[in-house]
Amino acid sequence: MEFPLLERPIVAAPMAGGPSTPALAAAVCEAGGLGFLAAGYLTPEKLEDDIRELRRATALPFGVNLFVPSPSTADPVAVEAYAARLQPEAERLGVALGDPHWSDDAWDAKLEVVLAAQPAIVSTTFGLPPIAAVERLHARSIAVWCTVTTPDEASRAAAAGADALVVQGAEAGGHRGSFVDGGGEAIALLPLLRLVRGEVDLPLVAAGGIADGTGVAAVLAAGARAAQIGTGLLLTPEAGTSDVHRRALGGDAATAVTRAFSGRSARGIVNRFLAEHSGAAPAAYPEVHYLTAPLRAQARRTGDADAVNLWAGQAHGLAEAAPAAELVVRWSIDALVALGRDA
Amino acid sequence: MEFPLLERPIVAAPMAGGPSTPALAAAVCEAGGLGFLAAGYLTPEKLEDDIRELRRATALPFGVNLFVPSPSTADPVAVEAYAARLQPEAERLGVALGDPHWSDDAWDAKLEVVLAAQPAIVSTTFGLPPIAAVERLHARSIAVWCTVTTPDEASRAAAAGADALVVQGAEAGGHRGSFVDGGGEAIALLPLLRLVRGEVDLPLVAAGGIADGTGVAAVLAAGARAAQIGTGLLLTPEAGTSDVHRRALGGDAATAVTRAFSGRSARGIVNRFLAEHSGAAPAAYPEVHYLTAPLRAQARRTGDADAVNLWAGQAHGLAEAAPAAELVVRWSIDALVALGRDA
Repeated sequence: MEFPLLERPIVAAPMAGGPSTPALAAAVCEAGGLGFLAAGYLTPEKLEDDIRELRRATALPFGVNLFVPSPSTADPVAVEAYAARLQPEAERLGVALGDPHWSDDAWDAKLEVVLAAQPAIVSTTFGLPPIAAVERLHARSIAVWCTVTTPDEASRAAAAGADALVVQGAEAGGHRGSFVDGGGEAIALLPLLRLVRGEVDLPLVAAGGIADGTGVAAVLAAGARAAQIGTGLLLTPEAGTSDVHRRALGGDAATAVTRAFSGRSARGIVNRFLAEHSGAAPAAYPEVHYLTAPLRAQARRTGDADAVNLWAGQAHGLAEAAPAAELVVRWSIDALVALGRDA
Repeated sequence: MEFPLLERPIVAAPMAGGPSTPALAAAVCEAGGLGFLAAGYLTPEKLEDDIRELRRATALPFGVNLFVPSPSTADPVAVEAYAARLQPEAERLGVALGDPHWSDDAWDAKLEVVLAAQPAIVSTTFGLPPIAAVERLHARSIAVWCTVTTPDEASRAAAAGADALVVQGAEAGGHRGSFVDGGGEAIALLPLLRLVRGEVDLPLVAAGGIADGTGVAAVLAAGARAAQIGTGLLLTPEAGTSDVHRRALGGDAATAVTRAFSGRSARGIVNRFLAEHSGAAPAAYPEVHYLTAPLRAQARRTGDADAVNLWAGQAHGLAEAAPAAELVVRWSIDALVALGRDA
């Protein structure tokens, strides 16, 4: 399926767990970019509601991101040991640890939701969608974009029928979209775009470390059709970013990749929890996500920046507290000026 | 001092330990780029010879890179333990381990060599040059470029009088040019360029993961004045790259950052030595460099790809075995075409 005609070459990154809202997606769409909803962690009913709310706010095309379920990799003994390690954190926060169970994030039900709602695009994270799902989405005129982090994943996504690839570099905030967690050192965006282009001929959306118009210009020059921006939108009033998260962004705090919060590699601002537990956290997603969920919720409520996941890409220092539409328009104009094209 | 007028916005990365040769520097200069000699590990006499040889081959401006000495960080007990660990490697290769001593890489003598020879540019790696050295270089009309890997290092280099910054992203091959080794997760090139630009107003040379014209276009669009390319030149006939190193490049082998070979973080292709010893290698540069030198030399001689440092950036899959001049011209033309400028 054809790549959508975008007035501005900017895609709002789907950010599960709160930041992506219908209001943010609508603002990005209305500004000429491509808004996205993040279905991860939502119930199918909440996803339906969000799509409905977004449709009330804009008639323009948008995307919905789904987490692809993976077989459980959790070693129960390791998860148990990690839970014991986190028990003092739970006591300090005055909550009980969550139940470290596996789940498929309601894949089947959410697939039915998007098939019925027919967004322009469904993007996937954490793996390849089953071929049957791709065929059903295509039959409903829904384009399928796969998130990839290596040239090999790009080839496999192309073979599975993807219409475009979201190429996620090492600098990206939040979860790595890798098919399998822990497959070696993450490749940075620029070399990754070039290596992926050597393997596949699909349209590429560049993701990771882009948070201004010059960054957009760079990835367009590198051959991407659009830049997917997440962290750069976290401080917008339309985003559902928590207050504690907002306060941590935009400065010069370092980021690091950790499994401490979810059991799966994700980039966040270095805080006490990340520093103390990264070395001990097992590769056990989504088990550890559920284990730490009550801690993170409580830390968010109490404004405890040292105990919550502060997802952020390496360029978070560029994040600005401005309306999403203003940022999308400015980034787009700055990018076209930098490239010597008509803005 | 002014940034040099380059016909083509490409700088040959200085690659110490063999790859950078007068022939490579001359070819890059004659093609319109900026050639570089790598003074690291050379004797001052050899550096003088190389500069003389380069001057015979070209009348165009070139640069010389110097390693800035750092105070020793080596814990003797840790170095001793690492030496014991490597003893079986030495026996297997039939050589003795080297003496793990500290050295300043003959900084004073090499500084006198470049002051006398007056290359257009002296770039520094591993730290800030002393202010007195910067002043003496400036007095001889030699521009000083500092390699930086963080916005903070960029600010400090600007304050020290640098004329331009070589901004080295996480994707770069070979040694990280950080002032202090191990200061947190390396930042990828695109976000690093933007964050550095937020701190300093100096001309920036982008380094790391660039190995084709599209990559050059991307960093120019991101605001760099030129792209510094190392790995992309390793397979040229003019480079002094060893045969065993050449055979490892250009495929899809993964890279990783390791202290196993030198005691200082550097990116190379993952081989047995890197995989087995990275976890145990101490932060002890240049002590570990000297400790492993006989092993690496012997492995190079015998073509043992599993026991030698195969420095390479994340884009090494793009490296081509073609004359340096051909690559520099092609990269430059491709970049200008990608940017819609006259080639």
